[in-house]
Amino acid sequence: MISGKIKAPAPVIRRLSNYHHLLMGLRQRQIQRISSTALAEMVEYNPVQVRKDLQLTGLIGKPKTGFLIDEMEDAIRRFMGWELEFQAVLFGVGNLGSALLRYPWREEHGLRFIAAFDSDSARCNILVNNIPVYHTEYFPTFSAEHEIHIGIVAVPAGAAQKVADLLIKEGIKGIWNFSHAHLKTPAHATVENAVFTQSLAILTRRLVESQVTGLGKESS
Amino acid sequence: MISGKIKAPAPVIRRLSNYHHLLMGLRQRQIQRISSTALAEMVEYNPVQVRKDLQLTGLIGKPKTGFLIDEMEDAIRRFMGWELEFQAVLFGVGNLGSALLRYPWREEHGLRFIAAFDSDSARCNILVNNIPVYHTEYFPTFSAEHEIHIGIVAVPAGAAQKVADLLIKEGIKGIWNFSHAHLKTPAHATVENAVFTQSLAILTRRLVESQVTGLGKESS
Repeated sequence: MISGKIKAPAPVIRRLSNYHHLLMGLRQRQIQRISSTALAEMVEYNPVQVRKDLQLTGLIGKPKTGFLIDEMEDAIRRFMGWELEFQAVLFGVGNLGSALLRYPWREEHGLRFIAAFDSDSARCNILVNNIPVYHTEYFPTFSAEHEIHIGIVAVPAGAAQKVADLLIKEGIKGIWNFSHAHLKTPAHATVENAVFTQSLAILTRRLVESQVTGLGKESS
Repeated sequence: MISGKIKAPAPVIRRLSNYHHLLMGLRQRQIQRISSTALAEMVEYNPVQVRKDLQLTGLIGKPKTGFLIDEMEDAIRRFMGWELEFQAVLFGVGNLGSALLRYPWREEHGLRFIAAFDSDSARCNILVNNIPVYHTEYFPTFSAEHEIHIGIVAVPAGAAQKVADLLIKEGIKGIWNFSHAHLKTPAHATVENAVFTQSLAILTRRLVESQVTGLGKESS
């Protein structure tokens, strides 16, 4: 059990997540320090806002020398709870589900898959990345025997609400939704929709702005 | 060819992309209208900021009646260029690459895959979701014969820079990077990193805030 903390506004969390992703890239390039101003430039945010966001994680930069990238990463990870271990189950072992099961979430984001479920028997009773895949019918039994913090919905949109209902019924508090369905859940549960189109939006808008030739009107 | 437009700040584009995702969900639930205040509440942004963002797309809401969801979606899609057709190629037909090839990007985001490439011969000369997969060596020949707007990098981090170099050499202006590598590219190219951990960050932070029990320290 960990102590409760003050509710951080969603936009702050989103920005901190962006900084974290950038910092991982800088670390890979063996860069050790960065100023909040340089960081702000890279993400196109206001430097004052970046400093405020970082302060919320408890980070205090030194004038002129800036921040140590390792310390920044650690502070953001602590803020997100990524140094903890969230036990997760995944529903829907199709292409996307399989990709998610193979992703190294545990290293950076504290997510540990303990099982996956699918309604197609042909996909069950196998291991994907050493994670067992069971039939969806087995979930209530599994849930009774395991502590589950996060349920990931990677089924088609039409089946998503049914999976969400199942997760709620079993008392799972956090749902990460990769389907396009808008899930209806009670207020005590947190549903977050995985939106990976933000970066596509920036990319396509930049292409529109730069007058790229040959962009046709969609025929369909 | 489309006319150039004023450069929109990245944070505005990111927020508009969030609104768009929400609006798709509301439309699925047959909701027709929403006020900017209600929208702001759903995304936890300041209503004034939401109204400013929407104005940038040319949208003007009517007092009291709010916005028509169809019109909002259309305005955001036009702003992003999603009513156009971006020809895209994808590198790396593993789990994630295959999932991306099967995703209906064309319907909502104007992305049309014309080919995929992989350096593993065993994955080549097949169709994935009707998209041909060729060997990476064939890319320069293919590129000479086709207009390509966006290159998607879905290879492992260690191979990502090589793919980016190849895309840049062939004059592709837009790169959507799904690897964890930080890609070095010339200034005339736009690289966007696909970050789908923003929503995970909100989810884990909310669980931390709500004192969920049983969150252990990572053993590894």
